[in-house]
Amino acid sequence: MRRHGARSGRGFGVFLAFSGAYPSTAVAIQRPSRVSDDTYKHLIRFCNSCGAGVTHRIPEGDTLARAVCDACGTIHYQNPKLVVGCVPVHGDRILICKRAIEPRYGLWTLPAGFMENEESAAEGAAREALEEANARVDIEDLYTVYSIPHISQVYMMFRARLLDTDVSPGVESLEVKLVREDEIPWDQLAFAMVKRTLEHFIADRRAGSFVTRFGDIRAPHR
Amino acid sequence: MRRHGARSGRGFGVFLAFSGAYPSTAVAIQRPSRVSDDTYKHLIRFCNSCGAGVTHRIPEGDTLARAVCDACGTIHYQNPKLVVGCVPVHGDRILICKRAIEPRYGLWTLPAGFMENEESAAEGAAREALEEANARVDIEDLYTVYSIPHISQVYMMFRARLLDTDVSPGVESLEVKLVREDEIPWDQLAFAMVKRTLEHFIADRRAGSFVTRFGDIRAPHR
Repeated sequence: MRRHGARSGRGFGVFLAFSGAYPSTAVAIQRPSRVSDDTYKHLIRFCNSCGAGVTHRIPEGDTLARAVCDACGTIHYQNPKLVVGCVPVHGDRILICKRAIEPRYGLWTLPAGFMENEESAAEGAAREALEEANARVDIEDLYTVYSIPHISQVYMMFRARLLDTDVSPGVESLEVKLVREDEIPWDQLAFAMVKRTLEHFIADRRAGSFVTRFGDIRAPHR
Repeated sequence: MRRHGARSGRGFGVFLAFSGAYPSTAVAIQRPSRVSDDTYKHLIRFCNSCGAGVTHRIPEGDTLARAVCDACGTIHYQNPKLVVGCVPVHGDRILICKRAIEPRYGLWTLPAGFMENEESAAEGAAREALEEANARVDIEDLYTVYSIPHISQVYMMFRARLLDTDVSPGVESLEVKLVREDEIPWDQLAFAMVKRTLEHFIADRRAGSFVTRFGDIRAPHR
């Protein structure tokens, strides 16, 4: 139920709003060189283990700058986030959700969200269908995998069987519906990964055979 | 070049070694309920944005406990890590690496490591082959995807073409070698995901057709 969209924008806003609220241990935190605008939004300033200010430098034996705590030795790695979701299918119809959250409020998507610790990718995909559309699904197979390097995210979308049509909007959805191929709102889809996944799905269904695909999405809009 | 193994064990060791080194802002951090042993190893105690002590509770609209900073409002999410790697192939031989780091020091693996921000999964897989075995590869297709929920990791392994046989150990490898099917050290493989990926690869190569697979690894040994 965590807000999919609330997260991607939180870093910079929080920093601006609370930049004067550093406690007494705060040290002058300089923006490190070699850090892009996007990375800087999520910049680590303090050690989450001991609370000391961190420095941004390349640790010995490493090749990239990390947030390093010289007080306790912790190195704070930052890694891509996994988003897991599915294409829930019932007969010839596909379940889609109208987003109640930013980004892309009011546009249509497939149920998907950030994978949680201590769950499998398939479990996460089923959980998101339940949370966003009160939809019970059987996850069938991995279908599309997209890297989106400029936002450091990887999407893993599964094919899924919708067990019944008793679906309704979760808190992150304004509306959910089952659509046939000619009812898909192609010009109102929230993300490139949704469009590509649906295009592949429809082509593969016609061909009678589904193939797992991977690729990168480099455009400014996912 | 970041140490693959140095990371998975760092949390608890650092905490034990430096637990007396909290600065003056440290507050009494209680272990939250509903947190497993494994999660506790990596417990967030301070806000990395403002340095204040965090509390662990379920934020409004969420379903899971998070590290919440009441001083600046930041919610610190923790998510599964992606490990990317490949099966580098040259003719009928596969490139494997003997680990120079824990865990599984001295056992054999396929080149793989934590995916970095701002790279694609395929780029990360090629980078790891270069770092661990000085191997130049062309990434061909996504091959196996394994969720390992108990350590909150997801492995993505690609098929790859090794461009030349001029390979040598990187700092994380004791030795690298190209092996034919009957030379694979099955009883000396570092991880379950390596064994499963190689088993699928050999079966698919015999069958003349490669199929992307996903699954979960639940055993205590990956």
